[in-house]
Amino acid sequence: MQIEGRNAVREALGSKMTINKLMIDKNLQNRKDEIVNLALLNKIKVEFLPKALLDKKSITNHHQGFIAQVVDFSYCTVQEIIEKAKEKNEQPFVVLLDGIEDPHNFGAIIRSCECAGVHGIVIGKNRCCQVNETVIRTSTGAIANMPIAKVGNIKDAIEELKSHDVWVYAAEIGGENIYQQNLNKPIAVVIGSEGHGVRDVVKSHCDGVITLPLKGKVNSLNASVACGIVIFEILRQREGR
Amino acid sequence: MQIEGRNAVREALGSKMTINKLMIDKNLQNRKDEIVNLALLNKIKVEFLPKALLDKKSITNHHQGFIAQVVDFSYCTVQEIIEKAKEKNEQPFVVLLDGIEDPHNFGAIIRSCECAGVHGIVIGKNRCCQVNETVIRTSTGAIANMPIAKVGNIKDAIEELKSHDVWVYAAEIGGENIYQQNLNKPIAVVIGSEGHGVRDVVKSHCDGVITLPLKGKVNSLNASVACGIVIFEILRQREGR
Repeated sequence: MQIEGRNAVREALGSKMTINKLMIDKNLQNRKDEIVNLALLNKIKVEFLPKALLDKKSITNHHQGFIAQVVDFSYCTVQEIIEKAKEKNEQPFVVLLDGIEDPHNFGAIIRSCECAGVHGIVIGKNRCCQVNETVIRTSTGAIANMPIAKVGNIKDAIEELKSHDVWVYAAEIGGENIYQQNLNKPIAVVIGSEGHGVRDVVKSHCDGVITLPLKGKVNSLNASVACGIVIFEILRQREGR
Repeated sequence: MQIEGRNAVREALGSKMTINKLMIDKNLQNRKDEIVNLALLNKIKVEFLPKALLDKKSITNHHQGFIAQVVDFSYCTVQEIIEKAKEKNEQPFVVLLDGIEDPHNFGAIIRSCECAGVHGIVIGKNRCCQVNETVIRTSTGAIANMPIAKVGNIKDAIEELKSHDVWVYAAEIGGENIYQQNLNKPIAVVIGSEGHGVRDVVKSHCDGVITLPLKGKVNSLNASVACGIVIFEILRQREGR
């Protein structure tokens, strides 16, 4: 698969991803470009190509002169996310997606999770947008630092997290006011799909439902915005503010 | 201009917008559709057209069977936003956009502002995405309840807000930790553009800079997500949590 765009390619170069080849706009060949230098330093094969050819090879149409061919995105396990938290000596902080469909929302969620110090994201094999070129580009490189587990069934992942003493909350309307909950503990939050929220069958496996108090008439938050607000409230409480 | 999509059209019907004509997919003609009923109740001219014709008339390509032709979006003034707060007997709560370019981000910001009880949004005449069909559709109807002021210069709008005893903060990196600030007062926040944040020349007119503490390596939040987190922190403090 391909990673496209300046930021995404720069982050990939600094991560554990295996890059087979880096294609760069040949107009950038003679400039002292940070990414060109990084690639040479990491002994990655670089091809300088005409912009028109990059346009043709681009999948997202937003390559900004940089396309990296990488081995397919490698998903992790829920266990590995728990271990990452342990390594960092932190209480686990996990986000589960119950059916996010829009790759731009998925990419934005990965960015937010990286910013908030989330240890990993769990997605379902079937109902959720998978990691693709648009997700990677929209994540502006954050995906290179974010473990993502793909599971057969979100319910099983919830039970696995609970067996590790992680509290699992669905972020949904109709629950407890998020600002009145103690969220400073090992925690996972389930974010629902754009159209349907968290499914009842998933909710029934959670320890509780947390809700953002809303003040408007329409009261419809974008899924990635809602996720951002919820995980930053968890971060605020963790940081003891 | 046009409003497209089920949610956006439903909200327009319940708002002060003047709808010249409503075009609906004729497959919906015989169903007891909520929007058809609302339109008849409001004595709005309705045309039932073949879906293919709606597809042709659609600007966003996401009409979901509903296109309303409305008079052009009518912007308000900064003064009117202040008055709206007074009418509701609330401390003013305003969002200024210093150059948001992506209509999807602008639409998502309008949604978030509506949910958080923001009294109005201020945009610049030149550097900011204007209200268009994509913004309206992405706002999922929230725009019908959200006053938006268009000003020649964001700096002048900041000075006008300050003259009404509103505290103006730029949301940007490098400022005070937002969780350590008292934001429970008449307040306006300036959100910067996707690429460049809040311009220095705008920042210099603000009373301060508030910053989200970030925990990652990439640390790049989507502009609409950042706006959502900031305004919900203000809402949390206003609600006394």
